[in-house]
Amino acid sequence: MQTRFFTINDHPQGTPARELFDLHEQALPDLAEGEVRIRNRWLSVDPYMRGRMSGVTTYIEPFELNAPLEGAAIGEVIESRDANFPVGTKVRHMGGWRDIAQLPAAELETLPTFEVPEQAYLGVLGMPGMTAWTGLNLIAEMQEDNNVLVSGAAGAVGSLAVQLAKAKGGTVVGIAGSQEKLDWLEAHGVKAVSYQGKDAAQLTEALNAACPEGFDVYYENVGGTCLEAALNTLRVGARIAVCGMIARYNDDTPSAGPGNLAMILIRRARMQGFIVFDHWDHYPQFLEEVGPQVENGRIDYEETIEEGLERTPDAFLKLFEGANRGKMLVRL
Amino acid sequence: MQTRFFTINDHPQGTPARELFDLHEQALPDLAEGEVRIRNRWLSVDPYMRGRMSGVTTYIEPFELNAPLEGAAIGEVIESRDANFPVGTKVRHMGGWRDIAQLPAAELETLPTFEVPEQAYLGVLGMPGMTAWTGLNLIAEMQEDNNVLVSGAAGAVGSLAVQLAKAKGGTVVGIAGSQEKLDWLEAHGVKAVSYQGKDAAQLTEALNAACPEGFDVYYENVGGTCLEAALNTLRVGARIAVCGMIARYNDDTPSAGPGNLAMILIRRARMQGFIVFDHWDHYPQFLEEVGPQVENGRIDYEETIEEGLERTPDAFLKLFEGANRGKMLVRL
Repeated sequence: MQTRFFTINDHPQGTPARELFDLHEQALPDLAEGEVRIRNRWLSVDPYMRGRMSGVTTYIEPFELNAPLEGAAIGEVIESRDANFPVGTKVRHMGGWRDIAQLPAAELETLPTFEVPEQAYLGVLGMPGMTAWTGLNLIAEMQEDNNVLVSGAAGAVGSLAVQLAKAKGGTVVGIAGSQEKLDWLEAHGVKAVSYQGKDAAQLTEALNAACPEGFDVYYENVGGTCLEAALNTLRVGARIAVCGMIARYNDDTPSAGPGNLAMILIRRARMQGFIVFDHWDHYPQFLEEVGPQVENGRIDYEETIEEGLERTPDAFLKLFEGANRGKMLVRL
Repeated sequence: MQTRFFTINDHPQGTPARELFDLHEQALPDLAEGEVRIRNRWLSVDPYMRGRMSGVTTYIEPFELNAPLEGAAIGEVIESRDANFPVGTKVRHMGGWRDIAQLPAAELETLPTFEVPEQAYLGVLGMPGMTAWTGLNLIAEMQEDNNVLVSGAAGAVGSLAVQLAKAKGGTVVGIAGSQEKLDWLEAHGVKAVSYQGKDAAQLTEALNAACPEGFDVYYENVGGTCLEAALNTLRVGARIAVCGMIARYNDDTPSAGPGNLAMILIRRARMQGFIVFDHWDHYPQFLEEVGPQVENGRIDYEETIEEGLERTPDAFLKLFEGANRGKMLVRL
């Protein structure tokens, strides 16, 4: 059986170009004992993958050049030499960026059984959802009635973070770019602030207008101007969960950081970076809390879907243009 | 009875000038019930006072123009209308920047009774010592054998932080400026690194050479280039206790921050600002742990002493020239 998969042919400088990605086709070896063959139905593309392309170890091993790329995917078992994963089982695994994956059974998870579309386990009930929940609860230790600010608030992670925060009762403000994203936020009870055309002082002013009492929690997905403005609006004892800083992922040389970092001292604030994989032992707790809310529609989510394996690099590149609302997915 | 005290006549921009400070003399009112009169013997000057001069509320109320400045001081009760503080009692209080203080008894603390010079309760066993201990233990949660980096390592706070860290067993590296300070650090078993003449990349290289495994804890007193270099040398899960950022206290306009703040994410690090006054309920625990070590000489400390009330502003201004080793004091 043939598999088709993407590789990268270089370590990109700056924003990756479409030419970075090559599509290959090759024959799969016979299944070994304990291996499983999966026909992928959904592929996930995520901002953190940019870090794995840089050729240096950050918090995760870098992608190898000219080897199949990896990422979360959902598919159905089509051939199996492991009794726990019979043919027909729906599974999640990291053998994405390809159509047919062949993996040891130890690297597969059977999908949970909430009444949700299967691709939800790549988004709202998958890594991005778990990331939102972890940042708010385990890192920022959000309390009832806390005022919460979220940057990248209409993205895959941010859009769940604002809803989880909203459910706990305080004022929730989301920073986003396009009018469409701002409208989505407002429709979900979130005060929406646009970063577009604003420097840090102007963004600070807009955040102060949206929440004059200031923020107890800042959920950071973006960095840059958003971070600088957020630092100006912290309450004493505030916690910043640093989930990502997408504004800078494609920078060749580091840009200067915020000039007001002393606000960390003045507001006795705490800023903490985290990687969701370090906290995966809490995934069952997350599912138990959030799964029913997705099932019954209390938590809403958006998807932006590209069709066909060939479009996977395009879907990935769109993440850096802010072109997605909610989770960016590829359907095969 | 007359009291002489200092005031400021303006909110300084940039580095304060000597002319900012005025010495006044005025008669004290009669003692009210519950009040105590103290002849000050030692005055403390500290970097945090610069923040109180700026006219804005940061983490502490600003100094009022043309009103007596405040600061820690030690003296002896010379007249009392409170039974807990009879004449002759040695006390610590916040009525510094003056020779005779008159205060409600509730604002006085009787000095503890370790066999140490009384001014130690303004330094190694006072606010700076408690600040070092709080940052390492309560904020950075230092563990046995952690590698610890301290900036401003020969200052009042830093010089105790390096010794407390050293006692817990890991590699301790201190950043300082002058050769005299570097020598003091080396004599106390601390690897000394000079920041002078180095940009962030060069300072990073020097820190890597001093501790190739990287740091679990960074005790931040300085900011600027020190912070940028430190961020490059963190181990996964590192904690930064932000005690001060003296490099920037006299800046008129904020300088840009470190361009490598994403290291907080990459190393899943935590950065937390703190003010020792928030943690003062731990002062007895600090005294119990550190007092005996100062008494028996296991913890060493330095003092830089200016003589006479008139020299108080000069002592304060020298803090920003790095002219002090250890605690800067004024003896009356």
